[in-house]
Amino acid sequence: MTTTRAAGSAGGPEGAAELLARTRTAVDPRLRETVDSLPGQIRRIARYHFGWERADGTAASAHAGKAIRPALVLAAVHALGGDTRQAEHAAAAVELAHNFTLLHDDVIDEDPTRRNRPTAWTVFGIPDAIIAGDALCALALRVLAEDPHPAAQQASARLSACVIELCAGQQADCAFENRAPQDVTIAECLTMAEAKTGALLGCACAIGALYAGAAPDEVEAMDSFGREAGLAFQLIDDLIGIWGDPAHTGKPAGADLAAHKKSLPVVAAMASGSPAAAELAELYRGPAMDTATVRRAADAVERAGGRDWAQSQAADRMARAVHHLSRAVPDLTAADDLLALAEFVTRRTR
Amino acid sequence: MTTTRAAGSAGGPEGAAELLARTRTAVDPRLRETVDSLPGQIRRIARYHFGWERADGTAASAHAGKAIRPALVLAAVHALGGDTRQAEHAAAAVELAHNFTLLHDDVIDEDPTRRNRPTAWTVFGIPDAIIAGDALCALALRVLAEDPHPAAQQASARLSACVIELCAGQQADCAFENRAPQDVTIAECLTMAEAKTGALLGCACAIGALYAGAAPDEVEAMDSFGREAGLAFQLIDDLIGIWGDPAHTGKPAGADLAAHKKSLPVVAAMASGSPAAAELAELYRGPAMDTATVRRAADAVERAGGRDWAQSQAADRMARAVHHLSRAVPDLTAADDLLALAEFVTRRTR
Repeated sequence: MTTTRAAGSAGGPEGAAELLARTRTAVDPRLRETVDSLPGQIRRIARYHFGWERADGTAASAHAGKAIRPALVLAAVHALGGDTRQAEHAAAAVELAHNFTLLHDDVIDEDPTRRNRPTAWTVFGIPDAIIAGDALCALALRVLAEDPHPAAQQASARLSACVIELCAGQQADCAFENRAPQDVTIAECLTMAEAKTGALLGCACAIGALYAGAAPDEVEAMDSFGREAGLAFQLIDDLIGIWGDPAHTGKPAGADLAAHKKSLPVVAAMASGSPAAAELAELYRGPAMDTATVRRAADAVERAGGRDWAQSQAADRMARAVHHLSRAVPDLTAADDLLALAEFVTRRTR
Repeated sequence: MTTTRAAGSAGGPEGAAELLARTRTAVDPRLRETVDSLPGQIRRIARYHFGWERADGTAASAHAGKAIRPALVLAAVHALGGDTRQAEHAAAAVELAHNFTLLHDDVIDEDPTRRNRPTAWTVFGIPDAIIAGDALCALALRVLAEDPHPAAQQASARLSACVIELCAGQQADCAFENRAPQDVTIAECLTMAEAKTGALLGCACAIGALYAGAAPDEVEAMDSFGREAGLAFQLIDDLIGIWGDPAHTGKPAGADLAAHKKSLPVVAAMASGSPAAAELAELYRGPAMDTATVRRAADAVERAGGRDWAQSQAADRMARAVHHLSRAVPDLTAADDLLALAEFVTRRTR
């Protein structure tokens, strides 16, 4: 089997940025030709969502996200000695599935902006945004169904199962909104985060393994690596949502607290049963928080142990991720791209 | 290849009802076991939508629609000498895709009832209905991806492409709502109806042909048969929406006119350039119609030639459908089930 490096040796987080840039160079043409196969207005909405067009249909230069998931596909192929060029369509399929969830999540969560631009539903209306998301989901699976690679059908089974898990994660997330934060257990919250974030990162790695012709237990180990790294990523993201630097995150520190979001550090803090937990629960029962109250809430999360718990959970999840990875790739030096991506997503400041 | 009749010889519309009942007996267990594989709340919403459960989660006996699309899959397999038992999962997949579109269309069109029951979004909320629809779409394609039949991957490519066409049809339908009826051309309206209704009936027949191991030109002929029969069905449905018997249709005669719907007979009438067309356009510019105005509008559609046009188009489409069918099945006596189903959908009164 020919081994081609899509991205050269990444070697640490700086290398990850380079790897992501090279992935975009390799996968973007596939993504664009596929999206351009969509009919009329749906194509326009998708091109707007990806940042390739402005609302008036003129060309724009915004790029379509960081391409972490396609980079994981290609890095997994590479780590297992496969030909990354043959997996470029599969990498595009995973990115299409991710963007389907973004379109629908923005409608469901009524989010007004994404990647510093108005969300598609605010520009084209809710019906068209729902329809464009549906079309991207079908397109992701169409790309795999039309891929002649022998792993394509198994990849399709994994990706469609993963979409169902993403749906379950989003559904659970919505359901938590209607419950008191102290009634959401840490286990429920971790299951939700794994479904909403870990599942697709795991699926990306597993599809890469399939395209490299890996054995079933290696495919499962790759899936577990991506899931655990995804959970670490979500824990860090939740920490940033409370203590992050607004200059880097683009949103004020404590934004998740102000919005009464039941993020993992908050749920862990509530579960501690400490006086700080009771204080936090009281603040969550109150009205939308002002800046001073947000600071009090962040302090309560910290005193109740939510910050430490999330940090140690994230470290633990990364350790588990690396352990799973070593089951699939015993010589971890062959998996440096995957390790660099995992480090990148968990050390990012935005 | 073993030939098994799923449904015996149908022989006319009475036979079609029997064929549909037998299809439900064969496919419902597949459909139920597949839907029951969905996670938690999504499974509950899907089971409610299919009529198997009430809103409170107790068992209900309503059945999940007429099963026309799965019956077309099995009848196409049979007409081409295939083993219908091997296509039962594929038939279930087509029905899942159809129900995904129903869930989302009801959200988008804000329809309060379906099959005489409150729609899922009115019971579970819009977010959960969107999510459950997404999951059914992914489930449809998962069923094909997990089907070991050699035709499964080609079927998956066709079904995912068909979902994108269904999206385009629904998008066009929504866009027509915001345009004056005289600005919508007959060609646009026919394209929309083919995408929204014909495409999935064609896809069902084509998938049946694939599962029977048919040659590519036979698969295309079967797709064309289903598409033309689907257009005939839509034309008849639109006629019923204006002149149908409310005792049979469950909605008042003229409901489509009262709602200012740009159905095919209306668009054809508007395009006639006659005084009756001008009168109709005037009525469509006015407020919601009362019973007397609906009668005047129906009369104007008829005088402008919309009723005759739709009736002759429907007959023409059925003739084309049979012509395409004879390309795939030269001895049409082998295709009696398909012909019975085509007659059934175009002669139905509800």
